[in-house]
Amino acid sequence: MSSSTSNLVALAAWIGLALAVPTGAVAQSEPLTARDSDPNVMGWMQGFPPPPDKIITQPDSVYFSFPKLRWSVCHLREFLPTEEISRGLDAPVPLDYPAPHDFAELRRQIDAVTFTPQNSDEEMTWEESLYANYTDGMLILHRGEVVYERYFGCLDEGGKHAIMSMTKSFTGLLAEIMVVEGTLDDTALVADIIPEIEGSAFATATVRQVMDMTTGVKYSEDYSDPNADIWLYSRAASPLPKPEDYEGPEGYWEYLQQVEPEGNHGDEFHYKTINSDMLGWIISRVSGQSVTELASDRLWRPMGVEQSAYQTVDGNGVPFAGGGITAGLRDLGRLGQLMLNEGEINGERLFPAEVVEKISAGGDRSKFGAGFPTFGPGSYTSQWWVLHNDHGAYAARGVHGQTIYIDPAADMVLVRLASYPRAQNGFIDPTSLPAYQAVAEFLMSRDE
Amino acid sequence: MSSSTSNLVALAAWIGLALAVPTGAVAQSEPLTARDSDPNVMGWMQGFPPPPDKIITQPDSVYFSFPKLRWSVCHLREFLPTEEISRGLDAPVPLDYPAPHDFAELRRQIDAVTFTPQNSDEEMTWEESLYANYTDGMLILHRGEVVYERYFGCLDEGGKHAIMSMTKSFTGLLAEIMVVEGTLDDTALVADIIPEIEGSAFATATVRQVMDMTTGVKYSEDYSDPNADIWLYSRAASPLPKPEDYEGPEGYWEYLQQVEPEGNHGDEFHYKTINSDMLGWIISRVSGQSVTELASDRLWRPMGVEQSAYQTVDGNGVPFAGGGITAGLRDLGRLGQLMLNEGEINGERLFPAEVVEKISAGGDRSKFGAGFPTFGPGSYTSQWWVLHNDHGAYAARGVHGQTIYIDPAADMVLVRLASYPRAQNGFIDPTSLPAYQAVAEFLMSRDE
Repeated sequence: MSSSTSNLVALAAWIGLALAVPTGAVAQSEPLTARDSDPNVMGWMQGFPPPPDKIITQPDSVYFSFPKLRWSVCHLREFLPTEEISRGLDAPVPLDYPAPHDFAELRRQIDAVTFTPQNSDEEMTWEESLYANYTDGMLILHRGEVVYERYFGCLDEGGKHAIMSMTKSFTGLLAEIMVVEGTLDDTALVADIIPEIEGSAFATATVRQVMDMTTGVKYSEDYSDPNADIWLYSRAASPLPKPEDYEGPEGYWEYLQQVEPEGNHGDEFHYKTINSDMLGWIISRVSGQSVTELASDRLWRPMGVEQSAYQTVDGNGVPFAGGGITAGLRDLGRLGQLMLNEGEINGERLFPAEVVEKISAGGDRSKFGAGFPTFGPGSYTSQWWVLHNDHGAYAARGVHGQTIYIDPAADMVLVRLASYPRAQNGFIDPTSLPAYQAVAEFLMSRDE
Repeated sequence: MSSSTSNLVALAAWIGLALAVPTGAVAQSEPLTARDSDPNVMGWMQGFPPPPDKIITQPDSVYFSFPKLRWSVCHLREFLPTEEISRGLDAPVPLDYPAPHDFAELRRQIDAVTFTPQNSDEEMTWEESLYANYTDGMLILHRGEVVYERYFGCLDEGGKHAIMSMTKSFTGLLAEIMVVEGTLDDTALVADIIPEIEGSAFATATVRQVMDMTTGVKYSEDYSDPNADIWLYSRAASPLPKPEDYEGPEGYWEYLQQVEPEGNHGDEFHYKTINSDMLGWIISRVSGQSVTELASDRLWRPMGVEQSAYQTVDGNGVPFAGGGITAGLRDLGRLGQLMLNEGEINGERLFPAEVVEKISAGGDRSKFGAGFPTFGPGSYTSQWWVLHNDHGAYAARGVHGQTIYIDPAADMVLVRLASYPRAQNGFIDPTSLPAYQAVAEFLMSRDE
């Protein structure tokens, strides 16, 4: 394989990893444990220079392979061009914490919470689940106060972590804000907003179908097929200079102009990342702002975050609206709290409550299908996952186990950043979703 | 030329642009004026997508060519992998400003200050000099207070700008702090600190010679010679995947291990960027921290800056200690104020006053040579330029006109960020150094 081919494969792999591949549990050889694969234990990138076998470099088939992945999720900007999601220049608004003694006691209590994983008879403790799922950061807010905060592996309070497909929920939230505020018509056809999409299957989809991923668009992710769309998309999206003989589309937006139809718009939910990038283009065209500018102006600056976030870009400087964001744990907690408070934070209203009411109500459950058995019979709307459980929970989700999990009944926001060896939430949900429910119930019991 | 060759040439050009090439004024066809080449006027990267002829992309022979350069100096991270120089999580410490009316009046007065450029009989106003030099940002602090602040082109108060060779002064300051604090012996030979440099001409140089760029090392920058060292260095430093047939050194540090001698160590000052990268390696090896971590821990966090800065990296994740930093205008003003206050800022001492005393005293003037006629008979020490004028001024300097200019006699710090069409301070000094002196004298006259 030539180096340029191998680079393309690597980039394709990275794009692929940004997807939440639907799957059940699959037998596979055991990877290193969370403790053994801790990047500090592995010794990646320590020393000046590190020993040759401890240096992590391009291409992404190397830097984003497990266990190197566990270091790279905190260091994506060191491999790729990025755009800032600016926090602005003001002082951050601190989060609320209990008194230190109470905080330590809460951690002890939460670590001891037990639950039973899906398809298992054996109880597991909350703390055990953190290691089972290769957690890098865990933050829990209850009634607006941080009740639990731990860092592992590559992450600390001053660091940032790739959030992968949780990026989609940023894009979807920004779009929903525009819909509710009346600047974006979600019944419009995509071609009415972006005329140059005319030759693409997206042309005749509505904005809402793009937001909810019920478009009928062809996008195959069969890694064994060299002509699979995932490869073509990855080549197009690569920010590195293209090979001389490259004749494919340049960047996310040229790719989207040549997507072919598959099925009918509106029929069914199909989790395809190209919808998120289509939505990113739509909201940029309508607003006259990039998704990074929108996220900064509507969310990051007014939320009073601690750290600017960033987003990877393609070769034309277009941010990856389907998976490119890296951010700090606490700042993602602030976003979750903003959602839980239905658009209010720090005493200010950032957008109408209707935005969150629509998202948390969920999408059309009849279209969800059976592709996500570990997640359950939920729905997907405005690029958010809705559980339709008795707590009214909904979530942003990224592969390798990232989540912002919002539980309105428990008045709880939970953020998890992780580097699970396999890029499939189907492996992670069995020991995370029951754990989230258990910790929510524990916190509710505090109220009594 | 193949695409990979052209990319290498482009990267070489970028490295080259990071150097302050010594030159006098040279006749050349007139480029667009500052107003006509303003990136907002040119319309670069506006629209979703921008028109094809307004998109700025790789390689750097494109994105870093004038007039595109005037946009790209504010957007380097969108083209290159980078590492953060973190501001930490605390609230920034605001700069002091006069009352708005006084501030406006000061701007009016400073804009009207006149001076006579070098080799000219015609007076120029301060404000005219800003346009003559393609200024993107100008900040002046007097007695610790901001008396002048203006933004042009791609820059605004929330933005950041490439500082090119001013990066060297960060590296040199960090080294001088370590020397004065006793953790780095500047009389040691480089090979005593980094044994693997043994086969390089650097091996027998002292740390001080590296700091002052008086090493006898071969490093040619003849762009017309395809075997010039600048090309080899640029290939080594490229963070993009190497061509399959590439057999040269990988990254800054492998390159430095094969530098050949030229002249004798200690004889003369020769402005060669490889010294700065050698110094970056030395202080990283000794401290166990990367230059980005050092800059964050010793400068950026304790200074209470507003924005994290960033630094480009090579393919091994090594920051470009000779030219890779991008930062905000006001934060560079804070660094200048820290120097003017001899190590104190916000009521805290960050390093001993001796650090600044040594730098501002200058280096050995007899070794400076005649290579910088527009700068004058100064000196270079610890990677800072010392004017040896009657104000005791010294400066960090980068090509395209960047400077932190510290005038102790006038109690003035001046920061300029710019995107002059030519990568040579020899074109810029004639209308900037006399202007800085004039504004210093104006500010001193306020004291009377």
